[in-house]
Amino acid sequence: MKKILIQFDTDPLASTFDRVVAVDAGVEELFSYGGITPENVTGLVHGAIFTRGPAQLKNTAIFVGGSNVAAGEAVLKQVQNDFFGPMRVSAMMDSNGCNTTAAAAVAAAKQHVDLSAVEAIVPGGTGPVGQRVAQLLASEGASVTLVSRSIERAESACEAIRATTETGQLTAAGATTADETAALCNGKSLIIAAGAAGVCFLEAGKLSKLDETQVAIDLNAVPPVGIADIGAQEKANEHDGVICYGALGVGGTKMKVHRQAVSQLFESNDAVIDTAEIYRIALDVIAS
Amino acid sequence: MKKILIQFDTDPLASTFDRVVAVDAGVEELFSYGGITPENVTGLVHGAIFTRGPAQLKNTAIFVGGSNVAAGEAVLKQVQNDFFGPMRVSAMMDSNGCNTTAAAAVAAAKQHVDLSAVEAIVPGGTGPVGQRVAQLLASEGASVTLVSRSIERAESACEAIRATTETGQLTAAGATTADETAALCNGKSLIIAAGAAGVCFLEAGKLSKLDETQVAIDLNAVPPVGIADIGAQEKANEHDGVICYGALGVGGTKMKVHRQAVSQLFESNDAVIDTAEIYRIALDVIAS
Amino acid sequence: MKKILIQFDTDPLASTFDRVVAVDAGVEELFSYGGITPENVTGLVHGAIFTRGPAQLKNTAIFVGGSNVAAGEAVLKQVQNDFFGPMRVSAMMDSNGCNTTAAAAVAAAKQHVDLSAVEAIVPGGTGPVGQRVAQLLASEGASVTLVSRSIERAESACEAIRATTETGQLTAAGATTADETAALCNGKSLIIAAGAAGVCFLEAGKLSKLDETQVAIDLNAVPPVGIADIGAQEKANEHDGVICYGALGVGGTKMKVHRQAVSQLFESNDAVIDTAEIYRIALDVIAS
Repeated sequence: MKKILIQFDTDPLASTFDRVVAVDAGVEELFSYGGITPENVTGLVHGAIFTRGPAQLKNTAIFVGGSNVAAGEAVLKQVQNDFFGPMRVSAMMDSNGCNTTAAAAVAAAKQHVDLSAVEAIVPGGTGPVGQRVAQLLASEGASVTLVSRSIERAESACEAIRATTETGQLTAAGATTADETAALCNGKSLIIAAGAAGVCFLEAGKLSKLDETQVAIDLNAVPPVGIADIGAQEKANEHDGVICYGALGVGGTKMKVHRQAVSQLFESNDAVIDTAEIYRIALDVIAS
Repeated sequence: MKKILIQFDTDPLASTFDRVVAVDAGVEELFSYGGITPENVTGLVHGAIFTRGPAQLKNTAIFVGGSNVAAGEAVLKQVQNDFFGPMRVSAMMDSNGCNTTAAAAVAAAKQHVDLSAVEAIVPGGTGPVGQRVAQLLASEGASVTLVSRSIERAESACEAIRATTETGQLTAAGATTADETAALCNGKSLIIAAGAAGVCFLEAGKLSKLDETQVAIDLNAVPPVGIADIGAQEKANEHDGVICYGALGVGGTKMKVHRQAVSQLFESNDAVIDTAEIYRIALDVIAS
Repeated sequence: MKKILIQFDTDPLASTFDRVVAVDAGVEELFSYGGITPENVTGLVHGAIFTRGPAQLKNTAIFVGGSNVAAGEAVLKQVQNDFFGPMRVSAMMDSNGCNTTAAAAVAAAKQHVDLSAVEAIVPGGTGPVGQRVAQLLASEGASVTLVSRSIERAESACEAIRATTETGQLTAAGATTADETAALCNGKSLIIAAGAAGVCFLEAGKLSKLDETQVAIDLNAVPPVGIADIGAQEKANEHDGVICYGALGVGGTKMKVHRQAVSQLFESNDAVIDTAEIYRIALDVIAS
């Protein structure tokens, strides 16, 4: 019986990224849907759970993606509501790679600093990846400054994260220029930049002036990158005492985590692979 | 040469149900389209018939689905109009499982009662499945009461069915409450409930009070089911003298019929697998 | 690692034609998108180039199709803009079969006439295929009359072609009736009819009256065909001294060219298979 992954994407066009990774994770048949909402997903979930016997349902699974984390969360919630009794399949949500990228980045950082004692900053912290990075750092006990162009949105993201974890400490900050972001980074041991493609937070030459910074990770692979001094391919390279990771440097781990998470979907028919479970997979991948 | 099934779904999102069954029926490549109408299907049919030589066209086939039977019928008709000479592929229509579910249910009933002499009732009879159930019962010679909330729609469905068969007898009935439906079921030997998800026709305890009823089949798998006294998994279980089938109990046969019908599409390039042929497959599946 | 082809179709529904050919060309996973524009393609290109390592990117490729050549060209241009450095995949554009059909037709004609000295006419010359036919004929040095119902559109197509080649000679002509088209065909050695389905340029009996015509090719497979005296299946058959090809007669070569071009996409990660390269493939296919 073939392994079928059903991709529910909340964007109009289903992500090619998630499709390629699914194929490379061993999925044999991939059903991809764009434009998925909590309103239109129920019939598709019923089709998934009523076509194979309970003992075989572990061969069907659901992946929720898209660029909007809140939309993905709402779809995953509806998917779970549509299950009942043994009629269910395993599901994961990784809208815009929020979980796998964030997990890979935080797991990478954990190799170099004690996350439970670190002062961290997350420029681009209200985006899909940034919010999960901040959540995982907080769950490890870090003090996290979450930065956005809008302090209101930063504060709102912090509040959402505080609802998921009792550890760590979250501070919202607003910055509309590269200079303001650089000033906020001063004194932080860990920087994880999680902005949109083309947004530069730290211009060339700025990184070496941040004396306290031990680890800097830039998750933007599309030039101009988020931290100009870090090449997209860099992986734990040291520049002036700062251990640096570029998006593609983290991307290798992220890819393995993403593939591993998709593979795990087919081990049972009732798993929900969430942020915490994906982070656990990332720690395993880095340790292996 | 790979077996390609082209799924034309009249709903915006192509059914996962039909996709999973296609994969499990041995289809090697599945091209799924949502939002198909008679107006936009022609180019897709031409692409199907002009890409492989006539001798190889049996490796390409068309499946028409979606929740709306009339829309599916219109698409199938257009598909057939777009063929010419040897440039054609086999096609089947099973909008909302109307043909396969109805065929499986009526074939199940036929094991227990003489359909040519039975008094049957079909609550939810104007829906995609219900209409085919009533049609197949009539084609076997049964007296069928087709029930809907709207007597006008019930009458309209009966007239459509009368145009397809000269045997049997069809009576339209309207019922807006569970009590009205229960009253109509009184005196009927065979009940096949074919309502929408969540519509309960016979409440708990009602089935045992229908003294004449020999067989009761509920085709709704999503709770609340259509006949409260029948579990979705039941298959020919007897309760108080009534042989009962739930949706999943019929579903096993339906699935085999659906898979078998899809497989048959690839035996030639000119088959049209319609309600009557699917019922023939169902009788074979039950006999084997 | 599986060969993935990503199909970007500018029509609302991705072409079944291109999908079947992709499967028959050995593509192992086909990701099909309809409704693609330069505005929505970038995220999908990033997903294609950021999921596999540079050394493995030759296993992913992009195919741009749809019925509108200008729209396909705009998408291909955007796709190429979205690549950077080694992060790229091979790509081809064949909107409405413009390149493969035109290449197959012109390569077929080249077997029978000296294209560098021929007087050619292309009824339906502003359509997706006709424009490429005229372009390839001109690139071989032919004198080409490009015919459309609108002389303005014919002139505009000629100007676009003149920008791509310095050889040959292009003349625009308008014709709104079959008689006008027949008059224009008088004195031409080579006719390649490239009209839309159902448009007849030369009515029955007209072909034998064109004394100078040596080769006539009709690229319309859907009756009524473009040249009534040519059967769709004909392949180099002679009628009254005219060597004739119907759409399916050319179609065999077109199919091989299309499949070969798709196969070639997976030989490297940086090929752009354009009109000229596809014509080179067509000459190879015909020679072999």
